Amino acid sequence: MRTSNFLIATQKETPADAEVISHQLMLRAGLIRKLASGLYTWLPLGLRVLRKVENIVREEMDGAGAQEVSMPVVQPAELWEESGRWEQYGPELLRIHDRHERDFCLGPTHEEVITDLIRNEIKSYKQLPINMYQIQTKVRDEIRPRFGIMRSREFLMKDAYSFHVDQPSLEDTYQVMHQAYSAIFTRLGLDFRPVIADTGSIGGSASHEFHVLANSGEDDIAFSDSSDYAANVEMAEAVAPAGDRPAPAAELTEVATPGVKTIEDLCTFLEIEANTSVKTLVVHGEEEGQLVALVLRGDHQLNGIKVEKLSGIASPLCMADEEAVRAACGAGFGSLGPVGMNIDVIVDRSAAALADFSCGANKDGFHFTGANWERDCPLGRVEDLREVVEGDPSPDGQGTLQIKRGIEVGHIFQLGTKYSDAMKAQVLDDTGRNVTMTMGCYGIGVSRVVASAIEQNHDDKGIIWPAAMAPFQLAIVPLNMQKSEEVAACAEELYATLKAQGVDVLMDDRNERPGVKFADMELIGIPHRIVIGDRALKEGNIEYKGRRDDDSQLIPREQIVEFITAQLTG
Amino acid sequence: MRTSNFLIATQKETPADAEVISHQLMLRAGLIRKLASGLYTWLPLGLRVLRKVENIVREEMDGAGAQEVSMPVVQPAELWEESGRWEQYGPELLRIHDRHERDFCLGPTHEEVITDLIRNEIKSYKQLPINMYQIQTKVRDEIRPRFGIMRSREFLMKDAYSFHVDQPSLEDTYQVMHQAYSAIFTRLGLDFRPVIADTGSIGGSASHEFHVLANSGEDDIAFSDSSDYAANVEMAEAVAPAGDRPAPAAELTEVATPGVKTIEDLCTFLEIEANTSVKTLVVHGEEEGQLVALVLRGDHQLNGIKVEKLSGIASPLCMADEEAVRAACGAGFGSLGPVGMNIDVIVDRSAAALADFSCGANKDGFHFTGANWERDCPLGRVEDLREVVEGDPSPDGQGTLQIKRGIEVGHIFQLGTKYSDAMKAQVLDDTGRNVTMTMGCYGIGVSRVVASAIEQNHDDKGIIWPAAMAPFQLAIVPLNMQKSEEVAACAEELYATLKAQGVDVLMDDRNERPGVKFADMELIGIPHRIVIGDRALKEGNIEYKGRRDDDSQLIPREQIVEFITAQLTG
Repeated sequence: MRTSNFLIATQKETPADAEVISHQLMLRAGLIRKLASGLYTWLPLGLRVLRKVENIVREEMDGAGAQEVSMPVVQPAELWEESGRWEQYGPELLRIHDRHERDFCLGPTHEEVITDLIRNEIKSYKQLPINMYQIQTKVRDEIRPRFGIMRSREFLMKDAYSFHVDQPSLEDTYQVMHQAYSAIFTRLGLDFRPVIADTGSIGGSASHEFHVLANSGEDDIAFSDSSDYAANVEMAEAVAPAGDRPAPAAELTEVATPGVKTIEDLCTFLEIEANTSVKTLVVHGEEEGQLVALVLRGDHQLNGIKVEKLSGIASPLCMADEEAVRAACGAGFGSLGPVGMNIDVIVDRSAAALADFSCGANKDGFHFTGANWERDCPLGRVEDLREVVEGDPSPDGQGTLQIKRGIEVGHIFQLGTKYSDAMKAQVLDDTGRNVTMTMGCYGIGVSRVVASAIEQNHDDKGIIWPAAMAPFQLAIVPLNMQKSEEVAACAEELYATLKAQGVDVLMDDRNERPGVKFADMELIGIPHRIVIGDRALKEGNIEYKGRRDDDSQLIPREQIVEFITAQLTG
Repeated sequence: MRTSNFLIATQKETPADAEVISHQLMLRAGLIRKLASGLYTWLPLGLRVLRKVENIVREEMDGAGAQEVSMPVVQPAELWEESGRWEQYGPELLRIHDRHERDFCLGPTHEEVITDLIRNEIKSYKQLPINMYQIQTKVRDEIRPRFGIMRSREFLMKDAYSFHVDQPSLEDTYQVMHQAYSAIFTRLGLDFRPVIADTGSIGGSASHEFHVLANSGEDDIAFSDSSDYAANVEMAEAVAPAGDRPAPAAELTEVATPGVKTIEDLCTFLEIEANTSVKTLVVHGEEEGQLVALVLRGDHQLNGIKVEKLSGIASPLCMADEEAVRAACGAGFGSLGPVGMNIDVIVDRSAAALADFSCGANKDGFHFTGANWERDCPLGRVEDLREVVEGDPSPDGQGTLQIKRGIEVGHIFQLGTKYSDAMKAQVLDDTGRNVTMTMGCYGIGVSRVVASAIEQNHDDKGIIWPAAMAPFQLAIVPLNMQKSEEVAACAEELYATLKAQGVDVLMDDRNERPGVKFADMELIGIPHRIVIGDRALKEGNIEYKGRRDDDSQLIPREQIVEFITAQLTG
């Protein structure tokens, strides 16, 4: 391709309304343009990247035995009423009606449509398992679209749905999809983690999110430094500290702590570290009026998702108000503790491992120091109540946890029978009985992958594309091509030779200053660049620079094709 | 691909609500399934065909220098208000609003979006011409969707838009697109005609439709049997008959014709042929109250589109009512004629070539025979007023016209400045002045191409795909594969060999009766089929049958790969 016949729409200024770097660079490099809030046009340069991602996704899905279909964007309300989601789904579901005033929606997802298709087409267990996918424009009416295509109202998704006669078959396909996703993100050249995810209210049996690690991510990912364990921080198990709890060494001592309300206050007042104290929070129990005290180490944070799943705890999680707490425990927030606590107590694993700790005395303005489990208060129920922190042991027993931010680009989910039950999607099993099909679903945010790759790969000059996603592999930049016949001839010859070898090459034949061309090629992130200039050419040389290199190097003209081929395959 | 891992969803019964053969066969062959009125899911088999069409379109558009972009389906109302189409467009434009009650529509076309993009990105004539295209899902809220994907509410379109500094540049690109479209439909293996089309109310300067010829088409196409002239019947010029008008031979004679109202009545009454008579129709002229008589040969039909474009005629065309005609001409419908006519007369070219013709006498219940121009009545204004008929000379002077029905699958259009004027899309020209860009637009109904190919290529067994569109090039049908090791081994070996050679082969490894497999492979229209059976194999033979062949032939096993390769490349 030549820049003279390819829209290079780079911009110098950083757009004012672009908050994240990928949004800024996608606009500045001319990959996308905003049409309206959350609606973007993909320009030729951006579309080349999007198509490369799309093709890799398609190849790996096909290779994993999935079959491609294409379902309508516009979906009839009736199916969503059947599944119950016409009522349940929030205003992100863009509901419309046609000229006959019939209700439809623009599909953010296709569980209903595919379940309807499969229940009509598949009659026997012999036709299962089946895994259908599409790569399609999705619409979600975001209340506040932002971050460019990262959270837009129209976006490109790969969504797949599998159907099974039983759970073991679902688990097999789930594993195949897990591997396919790993293969996709590996081929794309991204630093990613498949993380254990919350199955949420759908209550399926297993779910993994695939996250691209990047500082701008919206999720905290905990992962082992020595194994492939990774989980959303919300989901990562905080294991009990190794070793036995030390024996009590200090006396239980009541201390007046006027004005002390928080753990920070207490640490300052007592001149202690937070990890030698515990804090006590009170939540509603499952029964009407029942309160439960949760005890965590002073430096740890409660993980509401974990607590909500515990037996005996109200769901959704509800913190008790101070009046109720004072009535039940004899003291307000800031002075609570396990010693002499009148209500049920659940202790976090790390708090349970402490000896000689400080805690509230259940008397306003007083704390204990030197408290010990069993000696001063019973250690009854111990659970995992807290969020993991960096340095925690990995729950799989290998290494310690690191925490980084991640951008969710994929999600695989064992749905179970949520939709097939509601929509009566059944097949005959091998004994001739009707059984409800078990389902899995598997999504990749194709357009989001493009943004996440930029979040992970950029510098102050612009984008640095991973090889598989780059709109072009190589840029040829001839200097003063319009004036120097030698430069023009050399550039044209190289362009023709490399193109014939199948190299995706961009020839910058614009009549622009060298500085403008260099800046553009760096901004749009082409991995390899050769510069053809009169001076070097006279000495038989051509200049090469990799996008991540600090300096360029001179390559003898007769070796340049071989050299480039080596760079591209290396 | 193996049928055991590929959804073959054939149906025996013809669906009751499918009126046209392509709709019936697309359902029966399992290419599509209806989700709701006008909304279809493409099953894996259908999607393979659609993607093949899409890829050929993309390759030819790229080859013609067009650049691919992707614009949103959801479009803001503001742009449509700017162009004036928010008001003008009918209810086919599906108007929606988002959660903030802002107006949007689902794009049936993208003139506004692309014009907005280009006016922001392109500033100088040096960046022109530019031609941008996309292959994208379009939505049109048809009042009565029918014929399956032929007239559906969601469909796949290739739409392209070109921008130019002047008309000559537009004409160049228009020619390039004309050639690209011809290349596309030729590669697809379709019998098509580029036909001169009506530019309608947009009033651009030129337009061609690309029609696939098929009996079920909705348009009549007139085309020369000896040249590439083709036009929509509405647009085809009816040229004057060759040679001079014969000299008058008969006397003008008034004949009482009681009860004669139509040309058929007259021909029966006088025992003459319709082509020796003329009929006279009366329409409103441009001025208030003015009437104009139109005289055509008795066997010809008025072409309203041609008449409406004539000077002096009211637009839209409006037939006069009988009371007004009687007041002006002295007689009612059925007794009008050019002899003694009181109002302005325009004569069709063919009627003007008649001598000794019959016509109404402008007196109820009377006609003339032996009437002649100039002698009995003046021959003033002569125009092309009629629809062409088969056997008419071709307007390009080469051959005679044939008329067939066609399905419109493509349309190219010189838009001019309709949108760029309304939306102020300007560039600086080479003298530094602001000029409004001139536009062209170029559409292909990608999903419609699939249906039109079936309309043109089918028999009573099912679809007969042109090679380039076939979902698979070749089917391997092993008989009793589950029982015969030899058959299975031979089939597997052939499958592996042909796949390795890049042949798109479908291996029918289902455990079904031979009759079921044969019928399915014929119904889904795979161009080539080989059958591997125990009996023939024992004699060293494999059976081959082309989809259009009446009989199968036996090919020696060791020659089969070579034979198939020859069939595929032939």
